[in-house]
Amino acid sequence: MRIAIDAMGGDDAPKVIVEGVMLAAEAFPDTTMVMYGHQDEINKYLTKKLSNIEVIHTTEKISGDDDPVRSIRRKKEASMVLAAQSVKNGENDALFSAGNTGALLAAGTLIVGRIRGIDRPALMSTIMTLNKDRNKMLILDLGANADTKPENLNQYATIGSFYAQYVNKVDKPTVALLNNGTEDNKGNQVTKAAFNLLKDNETIDFIGNTEARDLFSGVADVLVTDGFTGNAVLKSMEGTALTIMQLLTTSIKEGGIKNKLGGLLLKDSLKEVANSLDYSKFGGAILFGVKAPVMKTHGATNDEAVFHTLKQTREILQSNVIEDVVKKFESN
Amino acid sequence: MRIAIDAMGGDDAPKVIVEGVMLAAEAFPDTTMVMYGHQDEINKYLTKKLSNIEVIHTTEKISGDDDPVRSIRRKKEASMVLAAQSVKNGENDALFSAGNTGALLAAGTLIVGRIRGIDRPALMSTIMTLNKDRNKMLILDLGANADTKPENLNQYATIGSFYAQYVNKVDKPTVALLNNGTEDNKGNQVTKAAFNLLKDNETIDFIGNTEARDLFSGVADVLVTDGFTGNAVLKSMEGTALTIMQLLTTSIKEGGIKNKLGGLLLKDSLKEVANSLDYSKFGGAILFGVKAPVMKTHGATNDEAVFHTLKQTREILQSNVIEDVVKKFESN
Repeated sequence: MRIAIDAMGGDDAPKVIVEGVMLAAEAFPDTTMVMYGHQDEINKYLTKKLSNIEVIHTTEKISGDDDPVRSIRRKKEASMVLAAQSVKNGENDALFSAGNTGALLAAGTLIVGRIRGIDRPALMSTIMTLNKDRNKMLILDLGANADTKPENLNQYATIGSFYAQYVNKVDKPTVALLNNGTEDNKGNQVTKAAFNLLKDNETIDFIGNTEARDLFSGVADVLVTDGFTGNAVLKSMEGTALTIMQLLTTSIKEGGIKNKLGGLLLKDSLKEVANSLDYSKFGGAILFGVKAPVMKTHGATNDEAVFHTLKQTREILQSNVIEDVVKKFESN
Repeated sequence: MRIAIDAMGGDDAPKVIVEGVMLAAEAFPDTTMVMYGHQDEINKYLTKKLSNIEVIHTTEKISGDDDPVRSIRRKKEASMVLAAQSVKNGENDALFSAGNTGALLAAGTLIVGRIRGIDRPALMSTIMTLNKDRNKMLILDLGANADTKPENLNQYATIGSFYAQYVNKVDKPTVALLNNGTEDNKGNQVTKAAFNLLKDNETIDFIGNTEARDLFSGVADVLVTDGFTGNAVLKSMEGTALTIMQLLTTSIKEGGIKNKLGGLLLKDSLKEVANSLDYSKFGGAILFGVKAPVMKTHGATNDEAVFHTLKQTREILQSNVIEDVVKKFESN
């Protein structure tokens, strides 16, 4: 297995990328990590010479401000573009980047290429839940597509179920639809029509609507939503968590000695809570519905998140989920 | 001023409603509280006889499971329906309920009636922010309408600005559009078109797009969004806050003596954080765009939330905001 890595993408690249790659290369000798980026900058941080790390020198990079589609088309020598090309050409099996999300989605769709039969690839992540029997849930689409048709949601459900089964090893994954109420007749025009398609989709086990309030309850293994709502929900979860942690920290710091002591004693608890909310340990987001795994971590990533995403990429490759999604959609 | 109160709506009705009404009647002698509901059940909790509390005996009620529009049309003797009728007839000036949200929206739109020129009344709430200079923000629509046109969003911006100015006493309120990125060209078809309308709306001070991650930053005085996304965002904020508090409580309870002691010392801090997230102190949600204030609190409400919502209702009536919104839209 060979993973093409855009070493130049992300706020702290290539440092944290190289560090995460070294962790992964050590842990997984069966996987070759191919870093695309400026060799001098990469070598500065490449303190371990491992036989399963390769460096391909590139001279351009896509920045966070670049227009996604235009930069993919014009910056032909960019690390992300060349890494994506290598996957398209079959030299490597998967693409990884912590860079410009829009550009990565464009590289995935336009260079790696859609799976025939899937109209819109979707961005999918795993979040933790409080449910002991189902401690994680896949959500898609988190923003690959701003405008979504009912049929897209139905395809998300199918591919999400494949992933839950192949990669998360869930025997009979369940699927829920994010909606504005749990009753069957709830929704806007898109979700109402999607509900009917999902009900009739024989590939999946559809359990009905769920509300954003219950995201952490682990109601299903897969949650489908349009990319606009998915993006808003994920960001409001992040914003709320950050706000609460900030309020607590302020209250501890600006309170009296009692608060400070309490904060000290509860330090581990607070860290534990922050950790259990940190979904980067589940890996990154995948652009799912293209011909190879296209993986993304936060721009403000660290070496551990890079490691976990590369670990996840390897698991996806080992599971053969994409091959079987291709078969499923091509046979339709 | 006279407020018509559906005493039978909500999980713990009429008890908490009557208790909240007594608090408000005592605090605001200039306002008459007219409770609609079963007189025996109301009188059980009506421990204070105040001259500005009236009770209108009704024999039916709308439950949480009732179909909104059908129940409004068929249950002609329901407390909510008769309270709404009294507002339409001019006997009372505003409507309050903690009952079935869908039914209240239907009663507001179908009985109290839309303001001419406003195509879709919207559900609006106030949330707290971490911004010292702008510690609250109005959000609309939170779910009155599942399907939203760009023109609806533009009208939400206008009426939201009126409310910020008249009721929240903000001199020149700013308006932001909830979107999937902050750049001007971001969005789905609806938000892209709405952006252009908002830019050209001379009644408002439009500052552009904002993301759900920044809801607590207090970027603007008014945030407009379609009801489907607004509903999802508000519910995911609630769900996230609840989950974090649950994780912390578990960590404190199941941890050792150190955690328990820390939890004890930090009890006030935790309560303070929970309080600052509790937006019920800002009052309830208003169905805005109908001919009188139609006010809603959570079904799982308490006497304080009822009090704050009645206080807010009185402030809305005193501000004459609805009269001026009517003038604005009728003159168009």
